Amino acid sequence: MSRRTILAACQMGPLQRAEGRPAAVARMVALLEKAARMGASVAVFPELALTTFFPRWFHEDLREADHWYETALPSNETAPLWEAARRLGIGFHLGFAERTPEGRRFNTAIYVHPSGETVLKYRKVHLPGHSEYDPIRKVQHLEKRYFEPGDLGFPVVRAPLGGPGGETEANIGLLICNDRRWPEAWRVLGLQQVELVMLGYNTPSLNMENRGFEAHHLRVEHSVLSVRAGCYQNSCYAVAVAKAGTEDGHELFGHSVIVNPQGEVMAQATTWEDEVVVAEADFTRCELGRTTIFDFARHRRPEHYARIVEQVGSVAPPRWSPAER
Amino acid sequence: MSRRTILAACQMGPLQRAEGRPAAVARMVALLEKAARMGASVAVFPELALTTFFPRWFHEDLREADHWYETALPSNETAPLWEAARRLGIGFHLGFAERTPEGRRFNTAIYVHPSGETVLKYRKVHLPGHSEYDPIRKVQHLEKRYFEPGDLGFPVVRAPLGGPGGETEANIGLLICNDRRWPEAWRVLGLQQVELVMLGYNTPSLNMENRGFEAHHLRVEHSVLSVRAGCYQNSCYAVAVAKAGTEDGHELFGHSVIVNPQGEVMAQATTWEDEVVVAEADFTRCELGRTTIFDFARHRRPEHYARIVEQVGSVAPPRWSPAER
Repeated sequence: MSRRTILAACQMGPLQRAEGRPAAVARMVALLEKAARMGASVAVFPELALTTFFPRWFHEDLREADHWYETALPSNETAPLWEAARRLGIGFHLGFAERTPEGRRFNTAIYVHPSGETVLKYRKVHLPGHSEYDPIRKVQHLEKRYFEPGDLGFPVVRAPLGGPGGETEANIGLLICNDRRWPEAWRVLGLQQVELVMLGYNTPSLNMENRGFEAHHLRVEHSVLSVRAGCYQNSCYAVAVAKAGTEDGHELFGHSVIVNPQGEVMAQATTWEDEVVVAEADFTRCELGRTTIFDFARHRRPEHYARIVEQVGSVAPPRWSPAER
Repeated sequence: MSRRTILAACQMGPLQRAEGRPAAVARMVALLEKAARMGASVAVFPELALTTFFPRWFHEDLREADHWYETALPSNETAPLWEAARRLGIGFHLGFAERTPEGRRFNTAIYVHPSGETVLKYRKVHLPGHSEYDPIRKVQHLEKRYFEPGDLGFPVVRAPLGGPGGETEANIGLLICNDRRWPEAWRVLGLQQVELVMLGYNTPSLNMENRGFEAHHLRVEHSVLSVRAGCYQNSCYAVAVAKAGTEDGHELFGHSVIVNPQGEVMAQATTWEDEVVVAEADFTRCELGRTTIFDFARHRRPEHYARIVEQVGSVAPPRWSPAER
């Protein structure tokens, strides 16, 4: 069975607040068609791909935000995406706001097989931002208001991808946006032999809290740095995909990337618009790191990692005392 | 109290097998003097700085290797380094092979205050390589033979650095060589609010196990990538220092770097010889990350990190089963 396949990052330009799901879905179907023409077996869409990045808008009453969430997928509005995937024989990754029958709210991603079946579901664990209106910020980032932290852990599954023949299998894991900056998340995937990490993001071009200490251009660099390090240190591919451009007057950066297990950028989007970039993965290349420098069984020393699970926040270290003289 | 200070990476060119400690120490004293002239309060020397990188040589009988280890520091041969530090008012980091009175062997680093007192001691946790002679390798990498894994964890201490006035304090942690590729090690330091990570390395320019999947130029890139990601994700400075050049006929890369809490390279050595590069740290800059995007107390979710301590090696994921149709 071949272990090679073509991966597509389906970056999306902005979705304005006034735009509805049908406009988004129509653009996504066009991206899916382009990805299929470029030979891809799997297409990765951004985080919260069906609407504007609504956590920038404050609602006192959470119920006023209900219209941003999906309660069922596929729905009447999103079904064309499922139909296109089946017609094209391509799997896809989709990020969306999820509201459960019990009224719980998550920032969620799924990987859907061309058959339309959901292979894997993940709920974002590392929610950035804040939960109450912050009068100091010019732009709110209310993810902690609109979502609860994911409760599914970081699952990995071995599953078929789409594409001609549909024969290529890979160990698939999902992350969402801010998760990519957290090495714990990558490592939990790596400990399950992940070979392909799909992740979407909506990341503002400007850090409202930078206090003059973080140059603007580092916003993109930090994103790419985190994905590259995650791939290298866990011997996996990643497809990291932006919603980009000026949305509701606020700029999100693009620079979607496909990264290999050596941490090399194989392909990069260079617009802030709807754009497809592809790269061919060969999952046998995940084995080099996994069996040599990052052979976890031979080299890891969990007896010294206890703080990672026993502490949440950091603690100040002891002060050194010189010996009496 | 000022939180600014000048850091020096004191890279060393090769030490041949035939060279003794006095030659190494004389070069280190010269590097320390240059670092002091460049205004540094702290000088970082490489891993195993006093000898050639001896794990490339196989000894059937470990006792034949005893001459590579230090049983006391300072010793007659190394005392000039301590004397120079005191004279110059500069602290230093030194990597060396340690043999304890009980005969235990570690790959060790210490940070020494200008007074000559040892502030912090660390024993390398992530030993790369192998423990038995490998006839397939052109160059042996016998760290697992010559050392046992460190037993001190990843300690951090708040301590004064050297330099004029000796007033600057920092939260100091140490890593050694291969540790820099392991995000667990950085995170355990970050959870103790580390502000300055000192680390030395001896890294071959060629990966003997690359199977054609890792381009040679990525050797340096992987080193820098790991240090940059570690600094960014833990809001700290690092001084990462090579022993470089052709040692016993085998090439080690240089490219020592000083990196800031934004993951930016502030200074880089560009020879494979004895070379000092410096950069000014401002430890107040560690606070931006620590109190915003990497405010661990607000954002970390250890309930989903259990695999990091409960597993050593990786496990294969379950296989997805499509629903019956």
